[in-house]
Amino acid sequence: MNNGIDAAIRYAEAENERFLEELKDFIRIPSISALSEHKGDVLAAARWLVDALTRAGVQGARLVETEGNPVVYGEWMGKPGAPTALIYGHYDVQPVDPLNLWQSPPFEPEVRDGKIYGRGTSDDKGQVFMHVKAVEAWLKAVGELPVNVKFCFEGEEEVGSGSLPGCLEANRDLFQADVLVISDTSMLAPGRPAICYGLRGMAALQVDVYGAKGDLHSGIYGGGVPNPIHALVEILASMHGSDGRVRVQGFYDRVRDLTPEEREAIRGLGFDERALARDLGLSVLVGEAGYNYVERTTARPTLEINGIYGGFQGEGTKTVIPAEAHAKITCRLVPDQDPGEIMDLIAAHVSRHAPVGVRVEVQRFDGGRPYVAPLDHPGIQAAIPAYEAVYGTGPVFTRLGGSIPIVEEFHRILGLTAVMMGFSLPTENNHAPNEHFDLGNFKKGIRTLCVYWNELARRGLGEAEGA
Amino acid sequence: MNNGIDAAIRYAEAENERFLEELKDFIRIPSISALSEHKGDVLAAARWLVDALTRAGVQGARLVETEGNPVVYGEWMGKPGAPTALIYGHYDVQPVDPLNLWQSPPFEPEVRDGKIYGRGTSDDKGQVFMHVKAVEAWLKAVGELPVNVKFCFEGEEEVGSGSLPGCLEANRDLFQADVLVISDTSMLAPGRPAICYGLRGMAALQVDVYGAKGDLHSGIYGGGVPNPIHALVEILASMHGSDGRVRVQGFYDRVRDLTPEEREAIRGLGFDERALARDLGLSVLVGEAGYNYVERTTARPTLEINGIYGGFQGEGTKTVIPAEAHAKITCRLVPDQDPGEIMDLIAAHVSRHAPVGVRVEVQRFDGGRPYVAPLDHPGIQAAIPAYEAVYGTGPVFTRLGGSIPIVEEFHRILGLTAVMMGFSLPTENNHAPNEHFDLGNFKKGIRTLCVYWNELARRGLGEAEGA
Repeated sequence: MNNGIDAAIRYAEAENERFLEELKDFIRIPSISALSEHKGDVLAAARWLVDALTRAGVQGARLVETEGNPVVYGEWMGKPGAPTALIYGHYDVQPVDPLNLWQSPPFEPEVRDGKIYGRGTSDDKGQVFMHVKAVEAWLKAVGELPVNVKFCFEGEEEVGSGSLPGCLEANRDLFQADVLVISDTSMLAPGRPAICYGLRGMAALQVDVYGAKGDLHSGIYGGGVPNPIHALVEILASMHGSDGRVRVQGFYDRVRDLTPEEREAIRGLGFDERALARDLGLSVLVGEAGYNYVERTTARPTLEINGIYGGFQGEGTKTVIPAEAHAKITCRLVPDQDPGEIMDLIAAHVSRHAPVGVRVEVQRFDGGRPYVAPLDHPGIQAAIPAYEAVYGTGPVFTRLGGSIPIVEEFHRILGLTAVMMGFSLPTENNHAPNEHFDLGNFKKGIRTLCVYWNELARRGLGEAEGA
Repeated sequence: MNNGIDAAIRYAEAENERFLEELKDFIRIPSISALSEHKGDVLAAARWLVDALTRAGVQGARLVETEGNPVVYGEWMGKPGAPTALIYGHYDVQPVDPLNLWQSPPFEPEVRDGKIYGRGTSDDKGQVFMHVKAVEAWLKAVGELPVNVKFCFEGEEEVGSGSLPGCLEANRDLFQADVLVISDTSMLAPGRPAICYGLRGMAALQVDVYGAKGDLHSGIYGGGVPNPIHALVEILASMHGSDGRVRVQGFYDRVRDLTPEEREAIRGLGFDERALARDLGLSVLVGEAGYNYVERTTARPTLEINGIYGGFQGEGTKTVIPAEAHAKITCRLVPDQDPGEIMDLIAAHVSRHAPVGVRVEVQRFDGGRPYVAPLDHPGIQAAIPAYEAVYGTGPVFTRLGGSIPIVEEFHRILGLTAVMMGFSLPTENNHAPNEHFDLGNFKKGIRTLCVYWNELARRGLGEAEGA
C-alpha cells in the first residue's frame, strides 16, 4: 500500500498545473446562493462538480434534489470492509460587494504571489476541489482507494444550510458512513495545521419593551411615566456581572468544562492577546474572569447584545419618552447547552427583571446546537501522522467560536463524528473582498488528504462512535 | 377708576365680533419660523402686529431688529409713577404637518362649536392678540391705561428663541420694566384658571461608547472583547435606583424642596392619576418614590434617556459586536439646579461607571435654567382678584414640567419676575393638528386682563423683586 501512496502523491504533483486550471474554471462560476439572479450559476456549479467527480473516477456522481439547491453526490465503494468516509463541503459562495475593493474581479481567478485570488478560492470551492483531486490521484494512479468515500457537497451553506437536514433525513442510506470529513475551517497560521474539534451553538432572541401607547414629551411627562429605554437598559445590564460572567440563572448549568489537557493545549498555542488587542484598536481584551481569550471565545458560552434601539437617534436633542425600545441578543453555546433551554432561561430572566409599568416580550429566532468531537476518535487520530508526513508537524486542536450548524446535524441525524481538516488561513479574506487561497497549502493539502486515506485505512475505526 | 374698568369691559364686549375677525386675519398669516420658505410670512406677521398695536393706540410700535426674526415693540408710558409691565408673547407658529389630519385648513381659521380652529389660535397668536385688545379697550374707552405697558413679541419661540437674549441685552433700556406678563401657558381645565409659577430647566447630553475600531463577528470574538452596548447599558442602568431616584452623585444637592404649602396646593388640585394612566395606555404611573405624579413631573428633577442606538436594528439576527453605541439624555431641572453643573456631574458619573476596555465620551448640548416665581409677588397676587371677578374663582398655582427658557432669561437679564396668566386649555392641540382656542376664554381672558391692569395699579409693586 505504501507504493500506492507514493504513486498517488506523484500523480498529484505531476498534475498540479492542470488541477489549478480546473480550479479556475470552478471559481469562474458565480454561484452566489444569497442572490436569486445567480440561481442558474449555482446550478451550473453543482453540474460542474458532478462532471469533475465523474472525471476523477467517482461512481454514480449526480444531483440529489432538495427543497432548495441540489446536493452533489458521488461515491467510490470499492473497498468492502474498509471504513467509509462522507466528505462534506459546499459549492455556493458569498456575495462579492463591495466590488470596488477587489484588486482583481472576483470571478476572474488570478494567481499573484503564490496565492489564487477569487470568490470561493478559500471558502469553500478550493477545499472541496482538493478532496476531488486527492481521490482522483488514488483512483488514477493506483486504481483504487484504501477506504470507501461518499461525497456530499451542498449549495446553501452561505445561506444557512436550510435544505440539507431534510435531505439527510430523506436519504439516510445514501449518506450513511463511518466518519465525516470536512475541509471548511482554517489552519492556526502558516505552517501550523489545525484540526477544529469544537463549534459553538447559538441562541438568538429579541427583547421588546413597551410603555405608553405613543411617544410622550419628556418635559411634560418626564419623571412620571415608565420609560421603556430605562427598563431595557436595566434588564440588559442585569445579564452580566462585573466578573464578565453571564448572570442569567442556570446559564452555566449544563456547560461541559474544558479538561485540564484541553486547557493545557490552548495555553500551548501561544496566542498573542496583546497583538490582537492592538490590531483591533483596543487597549485590552476583556471577558469572563478565569479564562484566557482563546478559551473565552471558543470554549465558553457567551451572551452578546448585537443591537439596541429606541427613541430619538438623530442629531442633537429630541425631548421624547419613546413608546418602545428593543434589543437583539445572541448567545454562543458550548456542549451540552441546549438552545431552546437557554432561550427559556433568558425569557425568565427578562420577566424577573422587568420593572413595574412596562410590558416586556421576548421573540425567539434561530437556535443551533454546539458540537464537540472526541479527540481520541480514530478518524481524528489518523489525521495526525498525515499532517506530520506533509507539514513536518502535527496539527494543533482548536475550537471555533462561531458555528457550522450542519456539523451538529450530521452528528444528530447520521451519528457521524466530524474530522475538520481545514487548509485555509485565517487571513485569507473569507466573506470579504480579495478572498484568496495559498497555493502551497493547496498542494500540501491534497498530499495530506492522500496520506490521510491511507492512515484511516491502516488504523480503521474500531469501536469509534459512528463506526 | 372703577368707571374706567367698566368702560373698558363694555368696549371689549361690544367689539368682540370685530376682534374675532381681526384675529382671523392674524391666523391667516402662515408664520412658521421653522421653515425657511415662510420667512416672508414670519415678517408679514410681525408687521401685522405693529399695525394692530398702532390701531390699538399703542405708541411707537415698530420692529426691533435681531440676528434672526424681528421683535415687535410698542409702549404706552402715559402713567408716570405707576408700574410698568412688559408683555411678552410670540407671533411665530409651529409647522402644520401632518396636514391630512386637519379637519379644516390650518391657515383658514374656522369657528366650530364655540372654538376657533387654526394654527396659532392657542399658541400663541390668540393670547398675544388678547393683550393687544385689552390695552385697546382701555385706551379707546377710557383714553388711558392704569399702568404703563411695553410689548415684546418675538418670532422665534418655536425654534428656541435664539435671538431674543441678545436682543434684550442690546436693548436693556427699551425693555426695562417692573414686571413681566406672559400669556403662553394653560388653564388647569375649563373654568379652572391657573397661574404657572415654575418652569423646569433642561440639560441635554449624549453618551458615546467606543470599542474595537470596527464591527466584529460575535461568533468569532464574542466573549473576548468589550461590547460597547454592554458598557452603555451598564452605565445607563446605574443612573437610576429602584426607588426611581436619580443616582448621579450630587444630582439633588441644589434642589429647592417644595414648601408644605406648595405640596398642599398640589394635592388640592385633585389630579386623577388613574385616569391619566388609562389615557396613556399604562397600567400604572411610576417615578421617584415619595412624590405624586404632579410633583414628579413639575417640581422634581428628572433624567430621561430619550434615545439609544447601536449595532444591528433590522429584522431577525445579525451576529455583530458593534464598534460603538450611543444614548441621548435630557434632564429636567428645578430651582436651584444649574445645567452646566448637572452636565459635569453626569459626565463624572459616566466616567466612573465606564467598564474597562471601552472609550467613553460625553457630548453636551443645550442647557436651560429652571425658573420659579415667588408666589407672594404683588404682580402675581394682583391676578387673583382679576380672575375671581371674571371666572368667579381664583387661579390655582401650577408649575410646568417643560420649559419656556426665555422666562429665565428675562429674569436673569432684566431682573423681571414673570406673571404667567395662560388662557388656553391643555386639550387645545398646541403643536398638533386641529389646534383651536375656546372663544369663551378668549372673551373672558380679555376681560380678566382689563381688570388685571387695574388691580396691578391699585396694589402697586411695592418692594417686590424687579420693581
